[in-house]
Amino acid sequence: MAGNSFGNLFKLTTFGESHGTAIGGIIDGCPAGLELDLNAIQRELNRRKPGQSEIVTQRKEPDTVAFLSGIFEGITTGTPIGFTIENANQKSKDYSHIKDVYRPSHADFTYDKKYGNRDYRGGGRSSARETACRVVAGAIAKQLLKNIKIHAFTSSVGKIYIDKPYQDLDFSKIESNAVRCPDGAIAEKMISHIKDIKKQGDTIGGTVTCVLQNVPIGLGEPVFDKLHAELGKAMLSINAVKGFEYGSGFCGVQMKGSEHNDLFNADGTTKTNLSGGIQGGISNGMDIYFRVAFKPVATIMQKQNTLDNQGNIVEMQGRGRHDPCVVPRAVPIVEAMAALVIADYYLMNKTTKL
Amino acid sequence: MAGNSFGNLFKLTTFGESHGTAIGGIIDGCPAGLELDLNAIQRELNRRKPGQSEIVTQRKEPDTVAFLSGIFEGITTGTPIGFTIENANQKSKDYSHIKDVYRPSHADFTYDKKYGNRDYRGGGRSSARETACRVVAGAIAKQLLKNIKIHAFTSSVGKIYIDKPYQDLDFSKIESNAVRCPDGAIAEKMISHIKDIKKQGDTIGGTVTCVLQNVPIGLGEPVFDKLHAELGKAMLSINAVKGFEYGSGFCGVQMKGSEHNDLFNADGTTKTNLSGGIQGGISNGMDIYFRVAFKPVATIMQKQNTLDNQGNIVEMQGRGRHDPCVVPRAVPIVEAMAALVIADYYLMNKTTKL
Amino acid sequence: MAGNSFGNLFKLTTFGESHGTAIGGIIDGCPAGLELDLNAIQRELNRRKPGQSEIVTQRKEPDTVAFLSGIFEGITTGTPIGFTIENANQKSKDYSHIKDVYRPSHADFTYDKKYGNRDYRGGGRSSARETACRVVAGAIAKQLLKNIKIHAFTSSVGKIYIDKPYQDLDFSKIESNAVRCPDGAIAEKMISHIKDIKKQGDTIGGTVTCVLQNVPIGLGEPVFDKLHAELGKAMLSINAVKGFEYGSGFCGVQMKGSEHNDLFNADGTTKTNLSGGIQGGISNGMDIYFRVAFKPVATIMQKQNTLDNQGNIVEMQGRGRHDPCVVPRAVPIVEAMAALVIADYYLMNKTTKL
Amino acid sequence: MAGNSFGNLFKLTTFGESHGTAIGGIIDGCPAGLELDLNAIQRELNRRKPGQSEIVTQRKEPDTVAFLSGIFEGITTGTPIGFTIENANQKSKDYSHIKDVYRPSHADFTYDKKYGNRDYRGGGRSSARETACRVVAGAIAKQLLKNIKIHAFTSSVGKIYIDKPYQDLDFSKIESNAVRCPDGAIAEKMISHIKDIKKQGDTIGGTVTCVLQNVPIGLGEPVFDKLHAELGKAMLSINAVKGFEYGSGFCGVQMKGSEHNDLFNADGTTKTNLSGGIQGGISNGMDIYFRVAFKPVATIMQKQNTLDNQGNIVEMQGRGRHDPCVVPRAVPIVEAMAALVIADYYLMNKTTKL
Repeated sequence: MAGNSFGNLFKLTTFGESHGTAIGGIIDGCPAGLELDLNAIQRELNRRKPGQSEIVTQRKEPDTVAFLSGIFEGITTGTPIGFTIENANQKSKDYSHIKDVYRPSHADFTYDKKYGNRDYRGGGRSSARETACRVVAGAIAKQLLKNIKIHAFTSSVGKIYIDKPYQDLDFSKIESNAVRCPDGAIAEKMISHIKDIKKQGDTIGGTVTCVLQNVPIGLGEPVFDKLHAELGKAMLSINAVKGFEYGSGFCGVQMKGSEHNDLFNADGTTKTNLSGGIQGGISNGMDIYFRVAFKPVATIMQKQNTLDNQGNIVEMQGRGRHDPCVVPRAVPIVEAMAALVIADYYLMNKTTKL
Repeated sequence: MAGNSFGNLFKLTTFGESHGTAIGGIIDGCPAGLELDLNAIQRELNRRKPGQSEIVTQRKEPDTVAFLSGIFEGITTGTPIGFTIENANQKSKDYSHIKDVYRPSHADFTYDKKYGNRDYRGGGRSSARETACRVVAGAIAKQLLKNIKIHAFTSSVGKIYIDKPYQDLDFSKIESNAVRCPDGAIAEKMISHIKDIKKQGDTIGGTVTCVLQNVPIGLGEPVFDKLHAELGKAMLSINAVKGFEYGSGFCGVQMKGSEHNDLFNADGTTKTNLSGGIQGGISNGMDIYFRVAFKPVATIMQKQNTLDNQGNIVEMQGRGRHDPCVVPRAVPIVEAMAALVIADYYLMNKTTKL
Repeated sequence: MAGNSFGNLFKLTTFGESHGTAIGGIIDGCPAGLELDLNAIQRELNRRKPGQSEIVTQRKEPDTVAFLSGIFEGITTGTPIGFTIENANQKSKDYSHIKDVYRPSHADFTYDKKYGNRDYRGGGRSSARETACRVVAGAIAKQLLKNIKIHAFTSSVGKIYIDKPYQDLDFSKIESNAVRCPDGAIAEKMISHIKDIKKQGDTIGGTVTCVLQNVPIGLGEPVFDKLHAELGKAMLSINAVKGFEYGSGFCGVQMKGSEHNDLFNADGTTKTNLSGGIQGGISNGMDIYFRVAFKPVATIMQKQNTLDNQGNIVEMQGRGRHDPCVVPRAVPIVEAMAALVIADYYLMNKTTKL
Repeated sequence: MAGNSFGNLFKLTTFGESHGTAIGGIIDGCPAGLELDLNAIQRELNRRKPGQSEIVTQRKEPDTVAFLSGIFEGITTGTPIGFTIENANQKSKDYSHIKDVYRPSHADFTYDKKYGNRDYRGGGRSSARETACRVVAGAIAKQLLKNIKIHAFTSSVGKIYIDKPYQDLDFSKIESNAVRCPDGAIAEKMISHIKDIKKQGDTIGGTVTCVLQNVPIGLGEPVFDKLHAELGKAMLSINAVKGFEYGSGFCGVQMKGSEHNDLFNADGTTKTNLSGGIQGGISNGMDIYFRVAFKPVATIMQKQNTLDNQGNIVEMQGRGRHDPCVVPRAVPIVEAMAALVIADYYLMNKTTKL
């Protein structure tokens, strides 16, 4: 209810502030008998962690996950999987300057008003550090869904975007560059742009596109829990996300029905896929694809006026080590959240018919 | 779990196929002591009902709601509010031609694969008729939230769109035309375009924009249940929706942090509102606004090839009475879903602090 | 949250006051493809309905269930099953005398204090009439669980009790007498006692024992949702229930471990079954059996002093048509709630292991 | 869904096996602004921990709780409270003898059948060690409910029981003896009996009675989530519990309505309290009291025949350090679960009326 759980049958509950002792979570409902590759989980965490390249924050966090339960001799037992990730590098002093100040477009003001107090160090609970727990759970969900391919990538940074359909991209190139864009030439432009932005002490937004392949037909619950509705919620729950569209998305609104309808082949596949792999909220076996909009990070290294908790307008300047663009590190988070949704709906679908 | 409930504390569960005896629902968790204006509820239903103008489906359904419980002497008692809406005009014969056929870009194929059988008459459970129940519950939520203003309107049809910020619109004009666009000149173009499309036996998409005013500060749960994530899910659960964005939305991805940040005034309001009234998933007291993309209706009055349940490609032509554009009738549904989310989060916020 | 839903995957939500237009409910999560015997559902309702014998209330309610959705051509479709039962015989005048009075040991006082108002007619939502909806859903659950046998019976009325283990009883005799006791001689004593009590204008308590046979091994979730914990909650949620015990129950507390342990046979069955078919919260394949305590009905036909809503002590006398003993009519309700729990846990168990 | 969470608004999710690295949990929904006495929490844990007296298991576990989040400068922040308790004393070797053997009346057999594998060391997830997490969360709930008094005590061991109503007991004496019985003379008999039983290598059952005072009027949700139904589920979810009764309980079934009804005083209190402080599922302001039955511990130090996982009957003898009677250590667990229920229902009741 208080919003720290995600999923119905495959369910993640997380805890932790960015500058407390540790963050962590509990995965409840992972089926028993799944042999886990723990290195693969850590690799996903490494894709998200700070300091991995020169275009992301230079904070150094080892982000090592420790599993405390639910796995015995390398295999899931069906009992809850508890895990923690220590907050190794808590430079709390970096944040003393914001103790009494509400940073613009951050959650400082709203947390204070909602709760009456807050752990102001590093954004506390509102820090994107919380997403590391999602990546851990998502990595386990991926192993549960081993036949399903989940590929997210950076599809735009500021005004620079990939001008090809995803079918023309080579997903094996996603990890070949720091910005996680599978088109090498565009990737270079993006990286160069992010470096410029960083030099200005500024930040920039971007989009992540995600493609899910080999999803079985039939996932999704009609009416309120349509598959794309849950995917949308999953993505919108990631820090800095401002929009979600799937299939034809916002472009689809300009089309006619006669153009937009996906005609069938005799085998039940469709000739086009403007539906984005989901019809009536239920997967139809075609690729599921969607796009997620990330705003520019609010913490900038320029002077800004802002408000303190006494009602004074004061001047502040961002300090610490922040991302000039969240999108490259958001790629594994998008994948993780997609995996959580699919795992949950995969399990839910097991009771649909006799 | 099976996806027919929405909300946590203010919770709607619905049932009903378009051509069964009736549709209906149960609203659980509406606080006791709310004096209900039943006429206002019916008025909201009338905004959604078929046959209300020449640009929507010409089906005639009275869509009269009957309340069965939870209201005593005009006041809610705190017990569940059960209600039904009869399916008066069930021309089931209109649908015998689709019994064995999967209409393109409909839910026929996916329902059949998921459940093994389906009530094919009028789309059964996948029919947008189900949204009438949402409008009933939303109308009650609106009365619970009497100080909060919720205004949705048609912001685009096909390529025709309102080219002004919402602040320049007069919301009192929304109901003054059949398309529910508050700008009279644009409304005329939209109506004329829909009529053209209808003559072609075709359909067209569009967008609905929704603005929530006077939402108290503090609504929204951090992490997975951010206020905009739940609004997004609510909207994406409406039939034909392909995308959702709030505040700066997809435009925000092209901006720099220095441009995008909303600087504070001394009273805690902000000079700009690219955040869309939500920061860190929690309302900040500014207007909440978002935009919802609707695809063109899949049922067209033109011949199309499609698949039958024996694996044959067959020719079919839409029959029956369908909307050339869902957007005008979607406006009250968007408002209803927004009201349900806000009512639920309003109640949830009552236990946030001591 | 407001307590009108039961179950996780097989989920019943109910509405309705005893003297409103109708009561009803929604069953969400019943798997598609179940061929329903609607007569069998009505038969279960008839076992619960008033006026069926001279030892129960003489109210006449036809208690006919109408299904509104979720069933197509006699088979469940996987969509929610909505149903209503009309309140045909609403003698509201019978209740005008209690409008301002809190009957002793009823819910009048607590409802008024909790909600600030109430539908006082016939107890409103607190009336046991609500359990008719449970019987409908339970009857469907029974059909889903066709290999599982669920037998409840009256095991005591006042101080008269069956002095044999359930293994010595012939369950086919349960419906052969008005009190639903499978031992004919004891049944006669019970009936005679209830008639005496009724003549006195008084009421009497009793117990129902329930035996579940052929429950598959493995149902039940460890820790908080142990199978017997959910069965206990299900039973304690029935009006007038004061206690629940399973297996050795309260007698088990006097035993030593060496006496209480159920030793295994080589086939995994156990020589004794003091565990009551559940170990560690999980069914072990042996018979599940439990006992439920019902207090005497609070409405008596004798004069009592009580409180009115102005703080005065006033004299009142029960009127209307009430049960001298609820136990005979509680038998099908106990079975229904047991069936709901088992159906839910049966579905949940489908995702336990790979 | 997988059963490792308890509560709706005040919600505990736990993880951990008895012989893994640690056990722990997440408390979500604790209101912000609660100043916590961390020593008081540890004191509750100490009441539950092994080795505290000669009549309980002689295992030595420090059972020290570490809080990882959700508390800032001693005050709750409204974000989830994560905590761990290390498994310091994991004598896994004690359990190698049961790796392939199903102990009688334990969860070994059912876990293996349900999950296909299990962490056999010390019972794994089925170990009562898990209840330490409940005590942590319950201790926080108690601090939230500071005006409500919650007292549990040992009311019987085997055939020795307190023969007075709880009103005649001095709750301040509960902690004055090792068995937690407030009547000193009876306590001595119980202790002596447990010592005898222990010498025999055997175990014995007992009951815990719990009294809740100063509970506000109005807690409890009608129909399925009646206050006593949730209390019953809470208690039945504790290891070794076989029964629950409240108010008049199983004795009430022998009474007439005219004897059982609680007549009102003019101030809304009642002259008697056979209702046990709850009417219609809702607290009425009188003392809530209930009784919980614990079976004898299944692990005995005598030879028993049992089954191995190859289908052979083998001889085994309990080893390790086990409780001859769980009841003394169950007392704080019963209190903790009661506190969790009341805290949850207290928060839920905040949205009942306008």
